[in-house]
Amino acid sequence: MPLITLLTDFGTADPYVAEMRGVLYTRAPGVTLSDLSHSIPPGNARAAAYLLGRAWHRYPAGTVHLVVVDPGVGTGRAALAFSAGGHRFVGPDNGVFTPVLDLLDTMPVAIPEPPDAAPTFHGRDVFAPAAASLAMGLGPDRLGEPLITVPVRLTNPEPVYQGKTVVGEVISVDQFGNLITNLTTNEVPPYGIVEVEELEVGALSRTFSDVQSGHLLAYVGSGGQVEIAVRDGSAARRLGIGVGGRVRVRLG
Amino acid sequence: MPLITLLTDFGTADPYVAEMRGVLYTRAPGVTLSDLSHSIPPGNARAAAYLLGRAWHRYPAGTVHLVVVDPGVGTGRAALAFSAGGHRFVGPDNGVFTPVLDLLDTMPVAIPEPPDAAPTFHGRDVFAPAAASLAMGLGPDRLGEPLITVPVRLTNPEPVYQGKTVVGEVISVDQFGNLITNLTTNEVPPYGIVEVEELEVGALSRTFSDVQSGHLLAYVGSGGQVEIAVRDGSAARRLGIGVGGRVRVRLG
Amino acid sequence: MPLITLLTDFGTADPYVAEMRGVLYTRAPGVTLSDLSHSIPPGNARAAAYLLGRAWHRYPAGTVHLVVVDPGVGTGRAALAFSAGGHRFVGPDNGVFTPVLDLLDTMPVAIPEPPDAAPTFHGRDVFAPAAASLAMGLGPDRLGEPLITVPVRLTNPEPVYQGKTVVGEVISVDQFGNLITNLTTNEVPPYGIVEVEELEVGALSRTFSDVQSGHLLAYVGSGGQVEIAVRDGSAARRLGIGVGGRVRVRLG
Repeated sequence: MPLITLLTDFGTADPYVAEMRGVLYTRAPGVTLSDLSHSIPPGNARAAAYLLGRAWHRYPAGTVHLVVVDPGVGTGRAALAFSAGGHRFVGPDNGVFTPVLDLLDTMPVAIPEPPDAAPTFHGRDVFAPAAASLAMGLGPDRLGEPLITVPVRLTNPEPVYQGKTVVGEVISVDQFGNLITNLTTNEVPPYGIVEVEELEVGALSRTFSDVQSGHLLAYVGSGGQVEIAVRDGSAARRLGIGVGGRVRVRLG
Repeated sequence: MPLITLLTDFGTADPYVAEMRGVLYTRAPGVTLSDLSHSIPPGNARAAAYLLGRAWHRYPAGTVHLVVVDPGVGTGRAALAFSAGGHRFVGPDNGVFTPVLDLLDTMPVAIPEPPDAAPTFHGRDVFAPAAASLAMGLGPDRLGEPLITVPVRLTNPEPVYQGKTVVGEVISVDQFGNLITNLTTNEVPPYGIVEVEELEVGALSRTFSDVQSGHLLAYVGSGGQVEIAVRDGSAARRLGIGVGGRVRVRLG
Repeated sequence: MPLITLLTDFGTADPYVAEMRGVLYTRAPGVTLSDLSHSIPPGNARAAAYLLGRAWHRYPAGTVHLVVVDPGVGTGRAALAFSAGGHRFVGPDNGVFTPVLDLLDTMPVAIPEPPDAAPTFHGRDVFAPAAASLAMGLGPDRLGEPLITVPVRLTNPEPVYQGKTVVGEVISVDQFGNLITNLTTNEVPPYGIVEVEELEVGALSRTFSDVQSGHLLAYVGSGGQVEIAVRDGSAARRLGIGVGGRVRVRLG
């Protein structure tokens, strides 16, 4: 029996996650459920795509990843099921699957809405039953008709070159106030000097211990992105910036 | 081995949930635990009853539902175990089980307090051991003597008719700021016009896409209640109301 | 297959916990994961040690406890694996294991850093693979070389005697605003009178029902510590104190 992971924007305070778990345990007896997150900002497909892209490939082959970040429920966006990279995916066609669309094993199908589905809660009535069917061994192609459009993709902001400078931006802020940027070592060579808000952070450090407590540093995070942090502190608070904030790199 | 669900007001920051999980895994080896929620407002039996009522029947028959929302610990309220609707339930006799008391399969028993129970943490020392025993196959009647009183019931505020108007109220607010009311389609016919705080929300919509982004709508939520929302926004913030807030429906 | 528990300071909003769970499920197929907490204040080894000390012994013998509260990642602190009290433990050598260091079954080993480990995320790349290996049956001694130093211990503040008074302090505040102190019945006899901030709380009560709603009380909590609470309220808010706050006991 494969795992099913859950990624939603439901928070922890309401009954929606509890109802979905019940449906999954009832329709896929013995399944193991693993939370990717329920704390995606409401309706933020980009944040969901970022988290899914970081985590899905760490799970065993065959895992079913169920995503319910779905501001478009009731608007006619398709409900998708497909296999990619040896894993299975179920959720809305709104860009949350961007990180795996280049790895498709099967063409996505559009899951039809059951007649008794609540029009506002496809997570429980459409997606969870489909995820349970996949976990029980059904192929994605058995869940609906092939999607006749191209799945929605989200594009990340690309770093911009301006003379001897490259300008990136913050795409995520973590629990510690570390700023995760859209820059990688492709854009930031060892001699590049990182700057934020007129402040010089410096060249890339290898670890937090390369600077003193309370000092700023830039380094390559565990996801491969350049991150900016304050050792024993919060870069987000220190610099007063968040998602969308500019990060400049002087290349010479 | 059946599932055990957990519903508490412990939050996530403290050791209580962790200790209870340890007791359950130790006394019911191989059991699967599923969180209903740990974010019930402290001591709020009504909020716990609402969530339990939404979720319990989604789980497989035989599931053990363990509820520890228990402001009365140490006050002599009984500790209950019983079977209802083909599921098993363990928790305090304070109204949290209201949604299932009409479905009793067995008469509730009062679980005696073990001599070494901490007087302030029956969740770990009374309820969790009882839930583990049920999961291991013991009948509720083996856990104590029949309850000699009638189990406590909470009554929801009932909608009130005033001429050609019916007045309900908000009974829950979800993660998205949607207002869940005590009204259903029994009180709100298709021609009823919903009003909140002198604002006309309008007749019931089928989905969020029936209105434009930023607009108010009323609709039948996934739990069967009339809910009030702002598309792509928070009705709670927009209207400045929460649990207990009045909702009027003009019937002609 | 034993359980693996997780104790981190990652919160719930970011991909780190999700990535670690994926690594554990991939390397220990069929394992059951149980969250101790992910809400430890960032880098607070003392809070992690307190929670681990409360919870570990409630789990079945053989459980693997994985702790990733690790402000020192990249600073050369050792990565530990060992057996104590019949359980197994993996995490940084920063004091988080203080509660079990007197119960060692095996000498701690220092886990070497794999060459491809992200320098900032040992949780995923060092600790989780080690925990999975233990769950799969490998002995701690197979994971590294014996630690050549003494494991780091944290010391709790000790109560101080001043004439006929003993002064303790608040070491934790729970979800309900109850204040957990470093005092036990060793320091607080039945005739001792507890005082906080010039207010007399009184002698130890047995349960919340010993006082009226809204009143302060002191009692022995489920962890054996003296705690201070307000019945149906928050002592932290009422008294305006938190961790480190002084608690005096008059002994005559």
